[in-house]
Amino acid sequence: MPEAILDDISHRRYNPLRGSWVLVSPHRTKRPWQGQQEAASKIELPQYDPSCYLCPGNKRAQGDVNPKYDKTFVFVNDFAAVKEQQAEYEPPVQDGCKADVSMSTMAKLMGGTALATRLLRAESTTGKCYVITFAPAHNVTLADMPAESILPVIDTWTKIYTSHVDPHSPLAQAAKSTTLPASTPNGNTQPNQQYRYMQIFENKGQAMGCSNPHPHGQIWTTTSLPEEPSIELQNLQQYRREQGGANLLEDYASLESEKGERTVFENASFWAGCPWWATWPFEIMVIAKKHKRALVDLDQQNQDDLAQVISEITRRYDNLFETSFPYSMGIHQAPLTGTNEEIEASHFHMHFYPPLLRSATVRKFLVGYEMMAEPQRDITPEQAAKRLRDCGGPLYRESLK
Amino acid sequence: MPEAILDDISHRRYNPLRGSWVLVSPHRTKRPWQGQQEAASKIELPQYDPSCYLCPGNKRAQGDVNPKYDKTFVFVNDFAAVKEQQAEYEPPVQDGCKADVSMSTMAKLMGGTALATRLLRAESTTGKCYVITFAPAHNVTLADMPAESILPVIDTWTKIYTSHVDPHSPLAQAAKSTTLPASTPNGNTQPNQQYRYMQIFENKGQAMGCSNPHPHGQIWTTTSLPEEPSIELQNLQQYRREQGGANLLEDYASLESEKGERTVFENASFWAGCPWWATWPFEIMVIAKKHKRALVDLDQQNQDDLAQVISEITRRYDNLFETSFPYSMGIHQAPLTGTNEEIEASHFHMHFYPPLLRSATVRKFLVGYEMMAEPQRDITPEQAAKRLRDCGGPLYRESLK
Ligand SMILES: O=P(O)(O)O[C@H]1O[C@H](CO)[C@@H](O)[C@H](O)[C@H]1O
Ligand SMILES: O=P(O)(O)O[C@H]1O[C@H](CO)[C@@H](O)[C@H](O)[C@H]1O
Repeated sequence: MPEAILDDISHRRYNPLRGSWVLVSPHRTKRPWQGQQEAASKIELPQYDPSCYLCPGNKRAQGDVNPKYDKTFVFVNDFAAVKEQQAEYEPPVQDGCKADVSMSTMAKLMGGTALATRLLRAESTTGKCYVITFAPAHNVTLADMPAESILPVIDTWTKIYTSHVDPHSPLAQAAKSTTLPASTPNGNTQPNQQYRYMQIFENKGQAMGCSNPHPHGQIWTTTSLPEEPSIELQNLQQYRREQGGANLLEDYASLESEKGERTVFENASFWAGCPWWATWPFEIMVIAKKHKRALVDLDQQNQDDLAQVISEITRRYDNLFETSFPYSMGIHQAPLTGTNEEIEASHFHMHFYPPLLRSATVRKFLVGYEMMAEPQRDITPEQAAKRLRDCGGPLYRESLK
Repeated sequence: MPEAILDDISHRRYNPLRGSWVLVSPHRTKRPWQGQQEAASKIELPQYDPSCYLCPGNKRAQGDVNPKYDKTFVFVNDFAAVKEQQAEYEPPVQDGCKADVSMSTMAKLMGGTALATRLLRAESTTGKCYVITFAPAHNVTLADMPAESILPVIDTWTKIYTSHVDPHSPLAQAAKSTTLPASTPNGNTQPNQQYRYMQIFENKGQAMGCSNPHPHGQIWTTTSLPEEPSIELQNLQQYRREQGGANLLEDYASLESEKGERTVFENASFWAGCPWWATWPFEIMVIAKKHKRALVDLDQQNQDDLAQVISEITRRYDNLFETSFPYSMGIHQAPLTGTNEEIEASHFHMHFYPPLLRSATVRKFLVGYEMMAEPQRDITPEQAAKRLRDCGGPLYRESLK
């Protein structure tokens, strides 16, 4: 690292994708820890669990029965955070006043209404939430799955994304060349209206609020563009304008691939590493090396490469502390509908946010200072990347079998 | 609530203080929970713990011995995230090229350097971190302490803040009328340079990364203005400009105090309630009703009222699920130094971010969707406020004694 001094001093690093800062305190790793310990993961799960609502052939909460699927399976979330249909909501507009109130009461009422309109703003959101299982076996995770078995997951994500893309969007052409979504298990994946954004993500492990170990992820699709993709999209668009059409993340991936010190793994299509501005101790970003707006832009080689990257990352995570490594991961890509500028400025990437810091049981808490003031990290991204780079190879559990 | 429909439909609410949105899914509380359970808090602690580094008379990590304090005690954090002194760091500037490299290599090098300068930005941060104990007894929390015993905590916060205020700032005049910091225990609370911001906060409970139950908080003071206060300050300044000098939070507190449906507790000086845009299930904001820029602006009556509010909130939190309620809380106020506009637009307020959702052991996880896309909550702020309003009265533990 050219600025070796950053290994020793407190400093802030800038995240150009979010336009935000993170505080880095490398000397702080020496701090003793006497706080909460995470439960180490139980790896002794059956391959089929009759009480699991995700296993093939089992019954779910609302009574539906899962098919005997052999790769992935998609269904509409039984406890969705947003729904396709709901009662209409019209945000209040400032009313005129009734004639029989005194002027001062009227002024107060008007003032109160104006204030309320300004400070108590809400808007209705509808959408569709899916659950996607990654494999029929109850007791595997992405880390246990070879790249070939991760490929159907990528394929399913791509099909769902494709079936939700605005037919008038510049993405629609690319979407056409993708296999049609008809082959997706459980037909109910056609939206009945045009949504704005699709968030694909996975919560893995109890520490990340996951309540079922069966390998699965979620897909929330909404009429609104959520906060994080919206912030990123603004910065991507600004960079594109300022740098004559260049893409921030494409530039960043090429810079990192050349430098190498924050690289965890890379192949022809993707760079994966701990970003300069990482918040979580072992945070990883996966970035397409060439400009790809969304899943629909990935060709067969890119899909194979993505499967390999996901396999390499999740395996290294598990190897690091010899535990089933908890994380939340998600895909950021072009909105389902948007301006041409928004869609062309979008760049396919994934974030992995894992909470563990020192061992299978000691995590980093982003609490007090982090919530009130600014994210703070202890080990540097370069130190984290080195450790992850160095723990490739077979999954540690393999040798225990 | 005028818009009763918001109790039933998914919607987003706008946070004008942060300029951000939160997704509200009221129907989602019906979701069953089979995930991680928090450990219920052990309330059987001794009043004095010989192995606690915060108890009076005990030795700390670096060998210092705590005085036999009887109210609060302040010392410089033995494992500080930022330090007063460290090696100098000059961010790299783009270099000229050596003469003997070919044009294309030069272009590449220049390009690489320019990219690095643009995308790998860092800045040095120094500062001073303090720990403040709230009471000598090892086994109490703010919830156990009557308002009179919380007063010395407010007094100590005020003194430390005062002793760090820029003597040329418009706050300095107010600071002069505050009791001098000389009486603060442990003399080492004078900064040796002018810092920009002071973040006062408390992490309570193991679920919030707190590693020692002895009642205490922290104070991190830095040369930089951290992310959150910086975002808030921009919005406070903009509102002030657009609304002819009005203060967003003063307006908001008066609106909420009139409406009442999100109020948990209020007195002459402060409104406390679940804000319209709350993210955490039982999140509370405490807002000064009259314009107060910082702790130095609080008179004796305001300080008494603040002690009462803190006591009322923390007690209600514990009563809600009959447990020692974990949270992170912090104070936002004027920067220690800044433009007149920044200082006049600042408004004293506190945030309480507690993670519990349904019981002493079931928390809300802000994970996958929340990290990748947008914070999401289940119960509405109005429902949360009602429950907290209704559980005032003596601390539940009192009757168990
Ligand atoms: O300083 P403490 O209490 O040891 O540590 C706790 O609070 C800090 C400030 O919010 C966080 O950075 C740590 O992750 C957390 O464990
Ligand atoms: O939907 P799940 O897996 O039951 O729930 C989990 O993920 C959701 C989306 O990230 C969060 O809102 C929940 O707090 C979390 O427990």
